[in-house]
Amino acid sequence: MEEIAVTSSSHTYKIVIGENIRFQLKSFLPKTYSSILIISDESVAPLYINDIRSNFTEEQVFQTVLPSGEQTKSMDTFYNVHTDAINAGLDRNSLIIALGGGVVGDLAGFVAATFMRGIDYIQIPTTILAHDSSVGGKVAINHKLGKNLIGSFYPPRAVIYDVETLQTLSAREIRSGYAELVKEALIADQEFFNLLLKTDIQQVTAEELQSHLSLGIKIKANIVQEDEMESGVRMYLNLGHTLGHALEAELGYGTLTHGEAVAIGLLFTLHVSENMFSKQIASHSLIQWLKENNYPFKLQQLDEHALLLKMKSDKKTVNSKIKMVLLEDIGSPVVKELTDQQILDFLHSFNRKLVTE
Amino acid sequence: MEEIAVTSSSHTYKIVIGENIRFQLKSFLPKTYSSILIISDESVAPLYINDIRSNFTEEQVFQTVLPSGEQTKSMDTFYNVHTDAINAGLDRNSLIIALGGGVVGDLAGFVAATFMRGIDYIQIPTTILAHDSSVGGKVAINHKLGKNLIGSFYPPRAVIYDVETLQTLSAREIRSGYAELVKEALIADQEFFNLLLKTDIQQVTAEELQSHLSLGIKIKANIVQEDEMESGVRMYLNLGHTLGHALEAELGYGTLTHGEAVAIGLLFTLHVSENMFSKQIASHSLIQWLKENNYPFKLQQLDEHALLLKMKSDKKTVNSKIKMVLLEDIGSPVVKELTDQQILDFLHSFNRKLVTE
Repeated sequence: MEEIAVTSSSHTYKIVIGENIRFQLKSFLPKTYSSILIISDESVAPLYINDIRSNFTEEQVFQTVLPSGEQTKSMDTFYNVHTDAINAGLDRNSLIIALGGGVVGDLAGFVAATFMRGIDYIQIPTTILAHDSSVGGKVAINHKLGKNLIGSFYPPRAVIYDVETLQTLSAREIRSGYAELVKEALIADQEFFNLLLKTDIQQVTAEELQSHLSLGIKIKANIVQEDEMESGVRMYLNLGHTLGHALEAELGYGTLTHGEAVAIGLLFTLHVSENMFSKQIASHSLIQWLKENNYPFKLQQLDEHALLLKMKSDKKTVNSKIKMVLLEDIGSPVVKELTDQQILDFLHSFNRKLVTE
Repeated sequence: MEEIAVTSSSHTYKIVIGENIRFQLKSFLPKTYSSILIISDESVAPLYINDIRSNFTEEQVFQTVLPSGEQTKSMDTFYNVHTDAINAGLDRNSLIIALGGGVVGDLAGFVAATFMRGIDYIQIPTTILAHDSSVGGKVAINHKLGKNLIGSFYPPRAVIYDVETLQTLSAREIRSGYAELVKEALIADQEFFNLLLKTDIQQVTAEELQSHLSLGIKIKANIVQEDEMESGVRMYLNLGHTLGHALEAELGYGTLTHGEAVAIGLLFTLHVSENMFSKQIASHSLIQWLKENNYPFKLQQLDEHALLLKMKSDKKTVNSKIKMVLLEDIGSPVVKELTDQQILDFLHSFNRKLVTE
């Protein structure tokens, strides 16, 4: 078991990574609560919700089980979960538990952030991908015009990562999660990146996984501690996401997993960086690794102008110019403003390059 | 012109009260903004929105004008204003201006709190009532099951109170606003309470009004500085609101103005306090003043059990017991837990007492 402490502007919370720790929840809570609402989805609830409930024999425990998938991060679901919370009689001394992947974590966190102006919540992520979203306090739902456009910064009281719950993940989900680990490695840790490039992600052991998660989370935690509100270095975590989000939006959410879209975004980032800084960084080795691990990485026949438009509606754009996180080298991220024409040209050359792979 | 500084957990902001200061907005802003969205309603926009726009000749200025009234604090309107903000191209360096009463302030503030996870906003209140809601950072929308159930603590960057905009208020709006001033006086300032009891609120001069607002805001500001997140003394500001909110909900929002409902709630608080602490406080003189100033103050044929239920769904209830703010004396609020039976008995004796007035 490993513990990482994260200090936010309002409080310090622990991220705990280990095996079977979903049965020891009370030891990680900062206080006792009058009642508890577990928010989960149809894929995860049948597997683990009773394990979670078994921690609380004295409290009133309620549960809301949502459909799986990105559509659940909607305004309608948000409102309905509020209705459930009110009907369950939750008050300001209640706790919300987000049990699931990033969708459940983002939605449940935003409900906690806004229920009676904010109550405590903890994250119990059950995907590798959610190691990223569960740390740092970003919570949100989607607007029809873009992902995560409605949300808050609202840190959890604890993140409890039971790696045993990751053993049932599909190959796609493992790919999706490892893309964010690659991102973290690219931002801050050449050695970790080299380690990942040697990893066949379908064959990782529980110990390797715990170690990879821990390395990734530490990188993320360091950054969000330095810049909780994303006015500076936190933007580095957006590496690969400008194109990643645009791809998801353009293809329709669910066509690519988030991590698959980010993987393509990371490749694009390397492509732009290598061109702008006239040096090889890691494009070639990353393409090989993506291939070996069965990532989809071609842009297909996507319209470059449509992608550009979607990239501009991303919420990190300021004043309608595109700010991209690039790499001067592995471990050396920088933010650069690119003109529309530069983006179009890079998308075009990126597309041609991938076709030949 | 008078300035009151309020320190919140995230930043310090100024409340400025004066005549014609709506034309000097830039001098009160902490920085320059890339674009501005003014959110107002159909009553206020025709009177003042062009005055507000005239402050910004270099920035892109957008406006959203909403229907007047409590119905505007809905999830649908919240979503639509987000759509407007996205379509206007607002980004994290944009500013939202809430121009109007408490409804506009609460809604616009909650949009600001959640747009791209939070952008700056300022309050330009145009009612007396909004002196209360515009200070302290409570922002919210209504759920069909209760008022203000969905919201955040998210302080503004400035509150600009131009008393000139209060000259067009109706008699009902003046009554509604003065009820919250009476509340603040009861919580903290016997002298201010005596002053208000001598005031014919339909005849106040601009100077008197500025002075009353300033006294009320200082009381509120002191309390929210001490307890921003409402875990302690901020609860005192709920004086009169447990029954007040229940009355609004039970009668349907809009039947009584918020302040009219609070005025009855304040009387009820005095009734309960005088009984619990076996002393006269100010019931009699407050009834006289409410009469002189044409406040509706009778409960009519309201069902006491229905009111009790509504009081229990108020979000300050913890664990389903009713916590009421009472007065040991003027300036000495205390929080007491009351049983359902006590509340029912007090509602009954209150009702009978008012019938004879």
